[in-house]
Amino acid sequence: MLDYDHLAALSAILRTGSFEKAARQLGLTPSAISQRIKTLEERVGAVLVVRGQPCQPTSAGQRLFRHAEEVALLEAGLGRDLGAFEGMAKTPSLRLAVNADSLATWFVPAMASVDAFLYDLVLDDQDHSAGWLRRGEVRAAVTGSPQAVQGCDCRYLGRLRYLATASPAFMTRWFPDGVTPERLAVAPTMTFNIKDTLQSRWLAQAFAADISPPTHWLPSSHGFVDATMAGVGWGMNPEILVGNAIASGRLATLIPDCPLDVPLYWHWSRSAGPALKVLTDAVLATARRLLEQDPS
Amino acid sequence: MLDYDHLAALSAILRTGSFEKAARQLGLTPSAISQRIKTLEERVGAVLVVRGQPCQPTSAGQRLFRHAEEVALLEAGLGRDLGAFEGMAKTPSLRLAVNADSLATWFVPAMASVDAFLYDLVLDDQDHSAGWLRRGEVRAAVTGSPQAVQGCDCRYLGRLRYLATASPAFMTRWFPDGVTPERLAVAPTMTFNIKDTLQSRWLAQAFAADISPPTHWLPSSHGFVDATMAGVGWGMNPEILVGNAIASGRLATLIPDCPLDVPLYWHWSRSAGPALKVLTDAVLATARRLLEQDPS
Repeated sequence: MLDYDHLAALSAILRTGSFEKAARQLGLTPSAISQRIKTLEERVGAVLVVRGQPCQPTSAGQRLFRHAEEVALLEAGLGRDLGAFEGMAKTPSLRLAVNADSLATWFVPAMASVDAFLYDLVLDDQDHSAGWLRRGEVRAAVTGSPQAVQGCDCRYLGRLRYLATASPAFMTRWFPDGVTPERLAVAPTMTFNIKDTLQSRWLAQAFAADISPPTHWLPSSHGFVDATMAGVGWGMNPEILVGNAIASGRLATLIPDCPLDVPLYWHWSRSAGPALKVLTDAVLATARRLLEQDPS
Repeated sequence: MLDYDHLAALSAILRTGSFEKAARQLGLTPSAISQRIKTLEERVGAVLVVRGQPCQPTSAGQRLFRHAEEVALLEAGLGRDLGAFEGMAKTPSLRLAVNADSLATWFVPAMASVDAFLYDLVLDDQDHSAGWLRRGEVRAAVTGSPQAVQGCDCRYLGRLRYLATASPAFMTRWFPDGVTPERLAVAPTMTFNIKDTLQSRWLAQAFAADISPPTHWLPSSHGFVDATMAGVGWGMNPEILVGNAIASGRLATLIPDCPLDVPLYWHWSRSAGPALKVLTDAVLATARRLLEQDPS
């Protein structure tokens, strides 16, 4: 068997980015950490960590990191069945990929209801979070893709509803005679990052025309809302974040009753499945409550 | 002189990540975009774009991208002095590095008050945003460093005040007999990412002890606040974001009157200086209003 204290040193380095911080986190000296990694590397016969600011895993290091997390999750299940025992792993860390808008709208209540883990969240676009799972870098993910990843299970969560919104002053300035393709071609919009296609998908859905408006780039869910309110541009915002502002007139929809719904899915690694069951249940229940559900 | 329409094609590719999206944005065919890049590369004698998902600049491509942005800024100044004229560049894009907590607290009003630019925001930790400026990848930055970057000017903005906060339920569960180093060593905290040292700096300031609590990882300013409210962990949150929640009792400070102040600085590239003046003025005025100022 591998020495799991040594694996814990590897995990701590990859989470904190440095040997010094890992040493502090584990209550060891940096040279003890260094020695553990050296022993592991000799044992496995491969370099595991590329030293740098921050330290990065090699592909072998990434694979061992994943293994350490899976074993800690299994051990946590043991603790639940047998009761905590001497020498048991502490609260296991769980790396998840979540899209920024889910984190900003409905995911926090789900994670807050399960305190069995230390959460290690990776943010990425809903169309790219499945990649993290496919590469084995996370144990579960909220994604926009229904396509099952090898070794993973998948459940439909519901739809996150987006509304094309702008401030009343922005509407008056840029759309005095209505929201037309011609005006949309010159009114500034906002884009989260190069992975964000929501604005262009909504334009295609609403106008069936190929419109490329000038755009700001703003990689933050709440930053998007704040900048929309401040009149920087129009943008696709989750209804959960802007519903109140629309009701009170601080924001307006570009076109009434023209939402864009993005279906979301929860994928989780089968090998971590039993340990993840309690979180999967919480995620499904919270999504049922907060996301748009299909009529049954 | 270079052909600036060709440079515009390069900028559009690097902003959108693909030849196809750049073509749509500029109203050209992808093959026209491709031809422009090829001509530019022959002219400069270097590859400019590494094709991929997304397309990335080479170092020569990065340098030209910066030049194109600087020229567009200069041209915008010309437009202000002479009035808009035929063939003038459209609203110039301006790439800035801002730390996430500044964007979440005080930066949006500053940028919203200046509509002369399409903002292209890069988010990074306040201790790392100066690196973006040093590498020439942004024209200005909000950073935690007073150290002037070559070719740049720098002004002090004030201090962003952080409070160590937790939910009342979290306080009862983890600190029933007060906030002590012993309890802080086991109560879960939250860390933004591996660049975030706020929690450990506050612990060192408050206890002069080396405490390494178990930590969640959560790379989102508002996610941090939401997770603090939901009792996931304690964390350093900007007073601007949590002041109301503390006043109404939905959040508590771990130790009363024990803030951590982070000084912030505005750095801007001198070559873009005149064009940036209006934004610099707005940033300084907004910071004066919303950040903690030193007694004069």
